[in-house]
Amino acid sequence: MALRSRSPAASITIWGRNPEQLQEILNSNLADTVETDPVTAVRDADLVIFCTPVGSMEQLATTIAPHLAPQTLVTDVGSVKACVAKKLTPLLGDRFVGGHPMAGSERSGLAAARSDLFDGAPCILTPSGTTLPESLEILTSFWHSLGAQVTTMSPLEHDRLVARLSHLPHALAFALVNLISETLPEDAPLLAGGSFRDGTRVAASDPALWTGILTENRHEVIAALREMSDLLGSLAENLEEEDNDAVLDVLTRAREQRVRLPLPNHHLPSDD
Amino acid sequence: MALRSRSPAASITIWGRNPEQLQEILNSNLADTVETDPVTAVRDADLVIFCTPVGSMEQLATTIAPHLAPQTLVTDVGSVKACVAKKLTPLLGDRFVGGHPMAGSERSGLAAARSDLFDGAPCILTPSGTTLPESLEILTSFWHSLGAQVTTMSPLEHDRLVARLSHLPHALAFALVNLISETLPEDAPLLAGGSFRDGTRVAASDPALWTGILTENRHEVIAALREMSDLLGSLAENLEEEDNDAVLDVLTRAREQRVRLPLPNHHLPSDD
Repeated sequence: MALRSRSPAASITIWGRNPEQLQEILNSNLADTVETDPVTAVRDADLVIFCTPVGSMEQLATTIAPHLAPQTLVTDVGSVKACVAKKLTPLLGDRFVGGHPMAGSERSGLAAARSDLFDGAPCILTPSGTTLPESLEILTSFWHSLGAQVTTMSPLEHDRLVARLSHLPHALAFALVNLISETLPEDAPLLAGGSFRDGTRVAASDPALWTGILTENRHEVIAALREMSDLLGSLAENLEEEDNDAVLDVLTRAREQRVRLPLPNHHLPSDD
Repeated sequence: MALRSRSPAASITIWGRNPEQLQEILNSNLADTVETDPVTAVRDADLVIFCTPVGSMEQLATTIAPHLAPQTLVTDVGSVKACVAKKLTPLLGDRFVGGHPMAGSERSGLAAARSDLFDGAPCILTPSGTTLPESLEILTSFWHSLGAQVTTMSPLEHDRLVARLSHLPHALAFALVNLISETLPEDAPLLAGGSFRDGTRVAASDPALWTGILTENRHEVIAALREMSDLLGSLAENLEEEDNDAVLDVLTRAREQRVRLPLPNHHLPSDD
């Protein structure tokens, strides 16, 4: 939808498995052609973008690899990068450069689509040491054209970062909802204020998709969960010891950081 | 501001310590009179509302108690209730009924005030066993008149509930910001998406106020922090054991609860 509105001349093919949804896409004029066969879909493409769960990408890459034109670049929008690079680079070579546009929401499907989704949103590209500069330039221009702000780093740096900036906040949201429903009366959430509502918004995200993300980034997510547990345990200890100065110090440091954080100021219900 | 716009006939006196801020209030026509002396401020009042940090209420109650008219009801808007009742009931008797309107935001001061703040927001009143029904009725009508939805429960039930619905989400927000600033490069938060932004919004709340809240509700907050640590530890274990079904179960339960939660639908940046 973003590409359509910003680059009307681009020829767009969408691959999918569900013919009804593909028909909807055609009806909405969001693609020039739709395909249920991935091999036909990628024929002569300049750019192929994997928008499937990370777990499906290896199979898809195996299927299309022998049929790609020489100029075709392949990227993806998966939320983890090291395991994707590890699986796809042997199949696709340097024509593959991973990407992660950090936009979206807990909603999914065509009804949740919006053409301004990437406006001001960060997009991380994860080239390897052997990625051609031209390939990186093409991908950077592509994301710029959709309004995103592009940063590059290694797949491992990416995974370490998003484990803490995105995967941990999601895990906290899921855990907080479960804690509430296990420990409080059923109608208690009626009394929740904004901190609970905002802190758990992303707990409405697709469980299968997020199980994939958390398990694919297992190593860094476990580390982040343990770091968080330690901080909560230390705060509990401060409270137990009635060390109010230590509590105030924790909160003061957090507030100082939070108000000066260079957070992207796109007021969408955007996400990771 | 809410009372002024909904009950223009009500006579409002605001007590404060800062004469410049009191003058601003008068200039904005938000009060009929302003006072720096609490004893003068409460003279002949029908209703006195403590809007100070919880830690200041005992001293204020001691000061005004001998000067209250027979009809005067006293309530408060503090975020914890058991310790407030314990301190104020001996000083004020049954004319005191605690309250907690669950609205507000991480912002403070006159510039952050809004007359629709309480629209649809929950407000918990915590009568004692000896509170007169008339007193509870008056307070309930007062909060209804500002648009709030009133619930009553015991001070202890309140504290158990808000420890998990509000204090824990705040603690998570403070801890998450500290975790990020301790473990990631300084410019990393530029890459944060909505889950981090929303999950840490309330980390910008006033540290002194929240140190008061967390320490005053110490017992229940410690319990909630430990419950959360356990859930995070258990998720880390599931990931470590590559038990994807267990991870999926955690996320699926959370999503089911989150989407069917009877969360108040007031789309303000409202809080607790």
